[in-house]
Amino acid sequence: MSEAAITLEGWYCLHDFRSMDWAAWKTLTSDQREYAINEFLTFLEKWENVEANKAGSHALYSIMGQKADFMMMLLRPTMEELNEIENAFNKTAFAQYTVKEYSYVSVVELSTYNPQNESGEMDPMIKARLFPELPKWKHVCFYPMDKRRDGDDNWYMLPMEERKKMMYSHGMIGRGYAGKVKQIITGSVGLDDWEWGVTLFSNDMLQFKKLVYEMRFDEVSARYGEFGSFYVGNILTKEAVPAYLQV
Amino acid sequence: MSEAAITLEGWYCLHDFRSMDWAAWKTLTSDQREYAINEFLTFLEKWENVEANKAGSHALYSIMGQKADFMMMLLRPTMEELNEIENAFNKTAFAQYTVKEYSYVSVVELSTYNPQNESGEMDPMIKARLFPELPKWKHVCFYPMDKRRDGDDNWYMLPMEERKKMMYSHGMIGRGYAGKVKQIITGSVGLDDWEWGVTLFSNDMLQFKKLVYEMRFDEVSARYGEFGSFYVGNILTKEAVPAYLQV
Amino acid sequence: MSEAAITLEGWYCLHDFRSMDWAAWKTLTSDQREYAINEFLTFLEKWENVEANKAGSHALYSIMGQKADFMMMLLRPTMEELNEIENAFNKTAFAQYTVKEYSYVSVVELSTYNPQNESGEMDPMIKARLFPELPKWKHVCFYPMDKRRDGDDNWYMLPMEERKKMMYSHGMIGRGYAGKVKQIITGSVGLDDWEWGVTLFSNDMLQFKKLVYEMRFDEVSARYGEFGSFYVGNILTKEAVPAYLQV
Amino acid sequence: MSEAAITLEGWYCLHDFRSMDWAAWKTLTSDQREYAINEFLTFLEKWENVEANKAGSHALYSIMGQKADFMMMLLRPTMEELNEIENAFNKTAFAQYTVKEYSYVSVVELSTYNPQNESGEMDPMIKARLFPELPKWKHVCFYPMDKRRDGDDNWYMLPMEERKKMMYSHGMIGRGYAGKVKQIITGSVGLDDWEWGVTLFSNDMLQFKKLVYEMRFDEVSARYGEFGSFYVGNILTKEAVPAYLQV
Amino acid sequence: MSEAAITLEGWYCLHDFRSMDWAAWKTLTSDQREYAINEFLTFLEKWENVEANKAGSHALYSIMGQKADFMMMLLRPTMEELNEIENAFNKTAFAQYTVKEYSYVSVVELSTYNPQNESGEMDPMIKARLFPELPKWKHVCFYPMDKRRDGDDNWYMLPMEERKKMMYSHGMIGRGYAGKVKQIITGSVGLDDWEWGVTLFSNDMLQFKKLVYEMRFDEVSARYGEFGSFYVGNILTKEAVPAYLQV
Repeated sequence: MSEAAITLEGWYCLHDFRSMDWAAWKTLTSDQREYAINEFLTFLEKWENVEANKAGSHALYSIMGQKADFMMMLLRPTMEELNEIENAFNKTAFAQYTVKEYSYVSVVELSTYNPQNESGEMDPMIKARLFPELPKWKHVCFYPMDKRRDGDDNWYMLPMEERKKMMYSHGMIGRGYAGKVKQIITGSVGLDDWEWGVTLFSNDMLQFKKLVYEMRFDEVSARYGEFGSFYVGNILTKEAVPAYLQV
Repeated sequence: MSEAAITLEGWYCLHDFRSMDWAAWKTLTSDQREYAINEFLTFLEKWENVEANKAGSHALYSIMGQKADFMMMLLRPTMEELNEIENAFNKTAFAQYTVKEYSYVSVVELSTYNPQNESGEMDPMIKARLFPELPKWKHVCFYPMDKRRDGDDNWYMLPMEERKKMMYSHGMIGRGYAGKVKQIITGSVGLDDWEWGVTLFSNDMLQFKKLVYEMRFDEVSARYGEFGSFYVGNILTKEAVPAYLQV
Repeated sequence: MSEAAITLEGWYCLHDFRSMDWAAWKTLTSDQREYAINEFLTFLEKWENVEANKAGSHALYSIMGQKADFMMMLLRPTMEELNEIENAFNKTAFAQYTVKEYSYVSVVELSTYNPQNESGEMDPMIKARLFPELPKWKHVCFYPMDKRRDGDDNWYMLPMEERKKMMYSHGMIGRGYAGKVKQIITGSVGLDDWEWGVTLFSNDMLQFKKLVYEMRFDEVSARYGEFGSFYVGNILTKEAVPAYLQV
Repeated sequence: MSEAAITLEGWYCLHDFRSMDWAAWKTLTSDQREYAINEFLTFLEKWENVEANKAGSHALYSIMGQKADFMMMLLRPTMEELNEIENAFNKTAFAQYTVKEYSYVSVVELSTYNPQNESGEMDPMIKARLFPELPKWKHVCFYPMDKRRDGDDNWYMLPMEERKKMMYSHGMIGRGYAGKVKQIITGSVGLDDWEWGVTLFSNDMLQFKKLVYEMRFDEVSARYGEFGSFYVGNILTKEAVPAYLQV
Repeated sequence: MSEAAITLEGWYCLHDFRSMDWAAWKTLTSDQREYAINEFLTFLEKWENVEANKAGSHALYSIMGQKADFMMMLLRPTMEELNEIENAFNKTAFAQYTVKEYSYVSVVELSTYNPQNESGEMDPMIKARLFPELPKWKHVCFYPMDKRRDGDDNWYMLPMEERKKMMYSHGMIGRGYAGKVKQIITGSVGLDDWEWGVTLFSNDMLQFKKLVYEMRFDEVSARYGEFGSFYVGNILTKEAVPAYLQV
């Protein structure tokens, strides 16, 4: 058996992708729509209070293309809290006019492949990464991924040293995008269908493509990366929600 | 031909994942909803009686994310009993407001790879594992899996000794989680699309991730494991059902 | 080119899996339901007459889990007859309350890998196997399968002698289940998406698991078998149909 | 780069598979149904005129199993004509009671692997094959396929001579079915998801199975063939349409 | 790590494939349909103004087969603009009678594998390719693709020189179709599920097949190309829209 990587975990995470059922939405009176919009805004306000109290964080983005219309990303200390939010949302009048498209269940993760994470003590920088306030940047990119286990390309059969070296080189590429792309890694082994979820934030959409493409030539991605669907979108502030939902 | 593993079987098992059709549910009067909730509670009470009589067991969990809203897991002595429960449930008013998401058909299984199971006689410990009372722990994790048959990574072509050694090492990891994670293996070769269903119970959701991730570096998973979808959730007690279904 | 296996074919076969739309079914008056049930029973009676006249055979089983509620399996001398039955069934009021889940189109097949089939003449035993009366046993198991063509594991590139030897060993396992499991092989190369359909009957559901698991360690399955979805169920006699459909 | 095969192309081709929505169809008055049936018959008559004028051809078959209820296969000189037929059909009242199941877009193709096609001039036999009148035989079989590009089994990396030799052997098997099976190959590289569509016609359904199974042992299929879904059916003459649609 | 290819990016791109819900469309009064058609025409006019102002480009094609009825392809300087168009379109009465079938999110890309692109400066020819006016040719072909990362066939592990040589040979084939096929490559690494989208335009549908088939024998496609679904169609001019939507 290869030496398992040690991970640190922070807040639990739910990515929830929805489409609008515009046809049904338009059958409502404007009073009914206003009511539903206010319901949604009330959720957003509660989430802002939680964030202000450092008891969680969230993000709301409009999603490009037919995969979804918007994504809610939620961070909370327990899976029960996420489940409660999810169920409460599903019972709203607003949710009735949305269509479930995709969701992802995971937990913020730091791995100790990266030397700067290896200190056992929970220093403030580690803490900030495990319990992050999500940036309010203009664009988001989400994709789930696995490390490959296929014939000679089996990540989990590699010795720790080799994995560490490859992850270091990988991290170096990421560091080249510091300030331009902020990355949140959430682990989902045992929690959802892929092993990790990657959420990227940037003020320049092109940086997602540059970063992911550069990494693809790196051995850890080229030989060992398996990728799910990619979702990209633009920030949807609370203030922009009424206009977004106006018909 | 490789020597086949010998298995012991206990109760038959049905995992049944459902989502709520909240929009339709809300069109009911509160009397109608109360009637439907009581129908469901009556099922749960019957199941509790069966469990009290050691004639089966069950579990009810709220499921995270869009894959399902809740899971019913049922253990019974015969497939006919499971089929009857399933059909009776489907005919209720309550079921009409649920959407089928996924199900899994299997039977509790112990394999004799593990020396402690090798005694032919049905000692009380074996019996307790074949006919288990499902724990009422806070969290559940379910996933189906196969042993790989792919080129050089073909589990079923390995000699018994090699399989036994690998399964022993695997079991050792599991034992490290004793008290933290309870595992029920159900076999489904010839019964459903994957070869096994794995149901884990824990009071700490993070232990699912820790256990599955540690095992993934073990050769038996790294080279020979193929995994289906992962479902995780929080316990939904009978007492919490009315609030869960309140709209 | 490898020498092709010679096959003998008997009756054409349709497996038709349906779910009940219970919500719609319950909107009917009991008179309407009775009418629809009688429609279905009339089909079953006609099929029984055909079977009594040795002009075909059929089976009706309740299916476990969410994949389907019941399966109709029909054997007839021509594909036109099967198509007529299918279309007539689809036009009934009863069919309107069923949902199509899966179907399989094939023809009863004996291959000459097995020496006992090699006699060119149609002896009575062969005839009974090509034009079988389906057993009325308690349980059914259906799954489609392929022989693998993947890199070094390519069944169709093997010399006839090697295939024959492996099929012989495979048949020996099957013979160990004589009296416990009855197997009908239907060929579907050129007719449906997999190469064969396997339908097993038993009075003990566990025997399906035992048989399929034991075979999986045999080289012909371990290296060369690709399996589709598995469906298992319990017999649904004509007499039990009204209760089965009672709401 | 390997030498590319040279192909000759004839009429464009659309395979259009539909199911009937019998429940909705039955809600119509018999006048409405008669109107819709006549709409469909008018299409068939127009298509017969086109065929009589050698300006195209078509076939209509009832399809076995749940994949579809019927298939329309259309050959025309331009993709625009096919698109117009498709759109006109979709706007009919009849189409409203059908469900789209699958379609395939391609063009009749002859490849020059086969020496008898190598003459550059368009002799009458070649012309008849590129612009064929589809036979009115009792049964049809349609499946799409690819040539494999997988590790050592990469058709497109083979030298022309090797491909030619294998295609010749393949053609020899096909010739053994002359008079029993008529085959139309349509190419779809760049037009649809598979590289070729194969449409077989026969008066004996069993010949589809015999032909495809025999070919599967031939290296070109065994090592290099990837197959999609198989659809089989029985001829549906214009005269039989009203009875077919009678409820 | 292999040297990453350098890319230049131009306008962002959205491919949006829709089907018509003809049954619902026919329930409208002709006034309502006219209103909806005018809504769509107003969008097309706005898009024409944008194109006239060189601030973007678009294409509208009727799509063959059941995959979709029409495709809108849009090029704009920012993802926000594309998102706004998409959301505005989805809120129209017309959109309510369309069904989402597929979409693709990408950005016009030139790679520097090709020597003529290697000049760092943005010369007019490069600019015209990054911000192209889409041709109004008779036919379109769209497909997404990946470069393979599978065992020995791993594009991203190849040295830059080898990739460059193969891309050069590939480009030479493309050049043989100059004047007959116009190709727009859009990159989607980090933006959508495949790595590139390929959009081809031609006045002769057969050229799509000829081009893609010839390229398939080229090593870069034969060994390293993975292809998604292919969509082909015929131009749908603004003037033809009312007739196209007439029922």
